[in-house]
Amino acid sequence: MPTDATHDPSLTSWVTPANDPASDFPIQNLPYCRFRKPADDKARAGVRIGDEILDITAAFAIESVAAVMALPGAARVDLRRRISGLLSGKAKPAPELLTPVRDAEILLPCEIGDYTDFFASLPHAMNVGSLFRPDRPLQPNYKWVPVAYHGRASSIVLSGTPVRRPWGQIAEIREGPPVFSPSRRLDYEVELGAFLGPGNQLGEPIPVAEALDHVVGVCLLNDWSARDIQTWEYQPLGPFLAKSFATSISPWVVTIEALVPFRRAPEARPASDPQPLPYLRDANDVSFDITLEVWLRTPGLEQPAPVSRARFASLYWTLAQMVAHHTSNGCPIRPGDLIGSGTVSGPEKQNRGCLLEMTLGGAEPLVLPSGETRTFLDDGDEVILRGWCAAPGYRRIGLGECRGQIVSARPDR
Amino acid sequence: MPTDATHDPSLTSWVTPANDPASDFPIQNLPYCRFRKPADDKARAGVRIGDEILDITAAFAIESVAAVMALPGAARVDLRRRISGLLSGKAKPAPELLTPVRDAEILLPCEIGDYTDFFASLPHAMNVGSLFRPDRPLQPNYKWVPVAYHGRASSIVLSGTPVRRPWGQIAEIREGPPVFSPSRRLDYEVELGAFLGPGNQLGEPIPVAEALDHVVGVCLLNDWSARDIQTWEYQPLGPFLAKSFATSISPWVVTIEALVPFRRAPEARPASDPQPLPYLRDANDVSFDITLEVWLRTPGLEQPAPVSRARFASLYWTLAQMVAHHTSNGCPIRPGDLIGSGTVSGPEKQNRGCLLEMTLGGAEPLVLPSGETRTFLDDGDEVILRGWCAAPGYRRIGLGECRGQIVSARPDR
Repeated sequence: MPTDATHDPSLTSWVTPANDPASDFPIQNLPYCRFRKPADDKARAGVRIGDEILDITAAFAIESVAAVMALPGAARVDLRRRISGLLSGKAKPAPELLTPVRDAEILLPCEIGDYTDFFASLPHAMNVGSLFRPDRPLQPNYKWVPVAYHGRASSIVLSGTPVRRPWGQIAEIREGPPVFSPSRRLDYEVELGAFLGPGNQLGEPIPVAEALDHVVGVCLLNDWSARDIQTWEYQPLGPFLAKSFATSISPWVVTIEALVPFRRAPEARPASDPQPLPYLRDANDVSFDITLEVWLRTPGLEQPAPVSRARFASLYWTLAQMVAHHTSNGCPIRPGDLIGSGTVSGPEKQNRGCLLEMTLGGAEPLVLPSGETRTFLDDGDEVILRGWCAAPGYRRIGLGECRGQIVSARPDR
Repeated sequence: MPTDATHDPSLTSWVTPANDPASDFPIQNLPYCRFRKPADDKARAGVRIGDEILDITAAFAIESVAAVMALPGAARVDLRRRISGLLSGKAKPAPELLTPVRDAEILLPCEIGDYTDFFASLPHAMNVGSLFRPDRPLQPNYKWVPVAYHGRASSIVLSGTPVRRPWGQIAEIREGPPVFSPSRRLDYEVELGAFLGPGNQLGEPIPVAEALDHVVGVCLLNDWSARDIQTWEYQPLGPFLAKSFATSISPWVVTIEALVPFRRAPEARPASDPQPLPYLRDANDVSFDITLEVWLRTPGLEQPAPVSRARFASLYWTLAQMVAHHTSNGCPIRPGDLIGSGTVSGPEKQNRGCLLEMTLGGAEPLVLPSGETRTFLDDGDEVILRGWCAAPGYRRIGLGECRGQIVSARPDR
């Protein structure tokens, strides 16, 4: 998929705030969202441009974002061109096609059938593995298998939804006994989410060379994690209640088409690492230059403080490899399914994408500009994820924000 | 919930084949299903009676089985009484309300939002644990936590759907390297499935004493498992592609109301075992007398051969405990969500609910009446699960069958 006129950095919109270089949502971006207009029950498909949402249900008879996700890749490219044309053209459409973001009710982009969370950052796997299993931080399968687990779709919430501290079983020592208590080690994980479609039929794997055609677009994803619940429950079947109390995502589906200028070759594996098995190998595979940031706002901070920054392109596995692996056994992907990349961490401390890694399991507290310290999240803390893409010769685009504030646990009964 | 006139063993239906003592579906049962009538596009909610399906969309304006699952428990009891009245009454309704099962297209009962698989049989956990981890078969959390993992909803298929042998990464030894190959250790697992509803809001746990109100009904569930893929992939995040290629369920949702006569006290824990934590403890909790059977039909057998039989009531955790645990962190359950019990095994060899256990990981082949042997499933083998409930003074009811035949793996590409 080459760049085209929709990526031209000189292209501007008559929605002039979108042309502000600081906007995440210039006409080169055009992410999908689902929204309601004021005093209107109907959920509509929209495209964000600057601080407005274009109603593509009215403008292009697109019933829903889910319908976009069901389109083949070529039809998604065509739709992007038509939307870009409308928003950059000389003839402004009827003003009721635009709704200011601040007036709209923003919804999850679609009903999410299945949610799968990968584990694709090698530094994250090493850092966390060394805390959970100091004797063997990295499992023997890591460099062969794009490791993942099924997540919970029903607790995926939109950015801005408060996150209640969960209760759960917690054991001070590995053998137990546990107590039932609010989590004391509540954490975030910064991830890239990817919405999938149109997908495959049961029993029909998607070859790696075609897999990126089944990725519609990306968002920010916070895989909230209760580390104390996780430590006690996760053997032998993996994380369950430690993750399923909430997963927050940003509302804007930044399309694979919009990401074309930010494609790059996946980072070369060290020569000592195994080459991927043939079903995961594609000489033309690509990653994307997306920078992911974590910011933290505490009761003691007037402004959010930057906590970490990492690069999506540093992951060990690509989105195409994740999709090819996921379907390699014939498992069907349906339009609107969501995958998470796993925590995106880099090699240095400032690249660590969760507090478990950042504080070495609570051993080295994070010191904030206010002088406050954190090992894990306190009630009232707000975690803000941000993401953006930049490449020479192209307009910067952003993923917006994914916010979530911790509220105190339910009282005991 | 006491028994009522709908459980009276002398009650009969004017659908007279339902009165045959051998029928799984007498008027005391009345399981829900989703179906289409011949030459009719519309999916309808139905109730099986004998070898017929009563169209409750037409008879009672019940739009779908999902709508039944969204009802509060009291309304489900009321609906059962009205259906029982119609099918036992003197006034026969219009004949078009009944469709023979053999003429109907049977569908999955509803769209399944999330699927969760538990691990509630202690003998199963011990048997499998000793094969995967001989040094510590049972994890320290087992007698405290109703262990579970999120499963894949998109690959849940109806009884009768062929099951294609999956490809996957397989390693002969723990350290690898793996090969990509069709699974050579394909297995079934006999489980009870339970459809949930109406469920809870995000952040609002369901107390254990109310949890059974959120179980609508049960079905048979075959958690097909590729043991070789599972062994290599499952650390550290649990089973993924080893399970997500297919999960088969029977089409008849046998309601909790129908199971009332088969309630029994959960089996007492050994005095040396810990008591459940308070959020999992309910003095009035119940289990159910449901017998689950596995039958195998191979190319060499004229009739299916019985392989194993086990009792649902032998599980270490009850359905109410599973639901209370699942929501204890605030995770929402939505109408139509499905949970699996985990493989139901008992203490003896003839009670082992999967081939991994039955053959001790392939070491002791199963010998069939035809003289054929199996360590794991061959192409062409058909696994048939059956389930039924009996109690003195009540009419026996059945869950029907859950069938699946193994078809050969896709050819290499």
